[in-house]
Amino acid sequence: MSIKITGTGSYIPSEVEKNEDFHQHEFLNADGSTIDYPNEVIVDKFKAITGIVERRYADPQLTSSDLGFLAAQKAIEDANIDPEKLDYIICAHNFGDVKANTVQSDILPCLASRVKHRLRIKNPKCVAYDILFGCPGWLEGVIQAQAYIKAGMAKKCLVIGSETLSRVVDKHDRDSMIYSDGAGATVIELTDEEGGILAHETASFTYDEAYYLYFGSSNNQELNRDTRYIKMHGRKIYEFALNNVPLAMKSCLEKSGKDIKDVKKVLIHQANEKMDEAIIKRFYRLYKTAVPDGVMPMSIHKLGNSSVATVPTLFDLIVKNKFENQSIEKGDVILFASVGAGMHINAIVYQY
Amino acid sequence: MSIKITGTGSYIPSEVEKNEDFHQHEFLNADGSTIDYPNEVIVDKFKAITGIVERRYADPQLTSSDLGFLAAQKAIEDANIDPEKLDYIICAHNFGDVKANTVQSDILPCLASRVKHRLRIKNPKCVAYDILFGCPGWLEGVIQAQAYIKAGMAKKCLVIGSETLSRVVDKHDRDSMIYSDGAGATVIELTDEEGGILAHETASFTYDEAYYLYFGSSNNQELNRDTRYIKMHGRKIYEFALNNVPLAMKSCLEKSGKDIKDVKKVLIHQANEKMDEAIIKRFYRLYKTAVPDGVMPMSIHKLGNSSVATVPTLFDLIVKNKFENQSIEKGDVILFASVGAGMHINAIVYQY
Repeated sequence: MSIKITGTGSYIPSEVEKNEDFHQHEFLNADGSTIDYPNEVIVDKFKAITGIVERRYADPQLTSSDLGFLAAQKAIEDANIDPEKLDYIICAHNFGDVKANTVQSDILPCLASRVKHRLRIKNPKCVAYDILFGCPGWLEGVIQAQAYIKAGMAKKCLVIGSETLSRVVDKHDRDSMIYSDGAGATVIELTDEEGGILAHETASFTYDEAYYLYFGSSNNQELNRDTRYIKMHGRKIYEFALNNVPLAMKSCLEKSGKDIKDVKKVLIHQANEKMDEAIIKRFYRLYKTAVPDGVMPMSIHKLGNSSVATVPTLFDLIVKNKFENQSIEKGDVILFASVGAGMHINAIVYQY
Repeated sequence: MSIKITGTGSYIPSEVEKNEDFHQHEFLNADGSTIDYPNEVIVDKFKAITGIVERRYADPQLTSSDLGFLAAQKAIEDANIDPEKLDYIICAHNFGDVKANTVQSDILPCLASRVKHRLRIKNPKCVAYDILFGCPGWLEGVIQAQAYIKAGMAKKCLVIGSETLSRVVDKHDRDSMIYSDGAGATVIELTDEEGGILAHETASFTYDEAYYLYFGSSNNQELNRDTRYIKMHGRKIYEFALNNVPLAMKSCLEKSGKDIKDVKKVLIHQANEKMDEAIIKRFYRLYKTAVPDGVMPMSIHKLGNSSVATVPTLFDLIVKNKFENQSIEKGDVILFASVGAGMHINAIVYQY
């Protein structure tokens, strides 16, 4: 008996926003002052640190729950289950449905209800709720699904991560270039197979860190101060992640009983390539081991940071053989890890 | 061994908004047309149906997470636990932190992170997340806490319901008079005592019902159509609740193994007094029994509908002997029930 991911799906928006598309933006410092060098330099520096070349923005007609629905459809088809048999639909996001060119988050009803509505599921015993947990929301949803299955409250759960960060960015903030849109979905089931979820780890750091990512005013002081956008203290997040994510990964791996040499892939949230490289180095250093080649597939170059969608999308692409030079075989041990607003960190050791 | 509520707390805002305070409002029909009778008549009709005489609005300096923190402090004190020992902080709400006189929901970071920050809890193993589940969010949070305890993932959880509906009402909509602000909190623990949570039931009706409560434009057609407010199809909700809530309550009671005669109190979500009276009558009719006097305490007259805060606040007031002519004794069987946006229904049979 094990708890396994039996189906995956993702929705990658078709609209590609390239780094060059930011050349005409008016970037400002947080205090509203102008930046002394040209946008080309800003964009090149940004690319050198984050690795991001382009990102995806959702069609203006679509909202986050639409993206989540499109990914969910594929995951259900992939799992080859009757959607009426789902016990839970858990939808992770951070800003709800934000219509294009508006500033309000629409979270009434919750996005899971919207997805269930669009999936045309009739069974009222299928419980549909949303979780807000920063970028680690999808992974935490999987941990919650596992809890329901362990507690005998569920056998089949659909866990979705869906986000349209392009709708909440401050165009005058360089950090806006990080953010992307997308959705990933997974079906989690109680199965007779071996492997599955071997261990999990979650931590919420709020004492000093609660507002490292926050909702704040535009860098352009002339814009309405009441209209707020996604904002971050990048340097603090970088240091925080580097100090805490490798330890959480190690703690999770220890609980699983697996050895560092067993780990075939580390699928980590992608907000900044340099940060992820530093995390993976520090993680392996805890075991006095070099980082194996290709152990950490990076989707950030083309997909940016799509928050809760990043990890499930990456996993979906690899298991469907749509990710160059990467594959996951039956029996492989994978370490999922994420960090984000809250500040929350989580990890799962999973045997495919 | 049982899973019990070991501490309760609530925060009832001090600002009283009386029905008379609406006499100067310009109420309009949904299509923007004027209403043919004076506000005094509108308000009297409203009172006759809903039972609401006054409601509470939060101080403009406070947001939903502040209310949640204030209730949580009391619940922790009441449970007499070290907050550092909490495994989970689960915060249920529907609109996040909405600052007074602004239109954006601030849910970054999640409200549970804010509450944990204000509680000055250092332990990172205390997982803080939000759940969006309409008015039944607090009760669903309790069901989730129970799952973590059953799954061996937690021993002590703090579950909060906090909401400032006054910040998302359309002043031109008569339904705006229903909504209120508040917060309730409970500590849920694994204990050696008898009783506690005996059974639970949850249902999500989304096929036809997903948008019975929704985020929509003002009845005043001259206001910005992109600014949206809490809106409801009241008649549809009434019929839906009447058809489905009594059955969910009965299903839950059957699972608990308790008899209808064992039920000492029904603590039900309060959005409309006539609706609750019809629900309780139909519930007891399923057992061919008359409704016992005083079985369903009503807080709606003075507190309105504070969404996720209503049921935990009502429970807190009664167990603290702050609710006239109502009390709960050790061993009493209580039926909690809620219905709201999603549309979600849930219930718990609880032995005090």
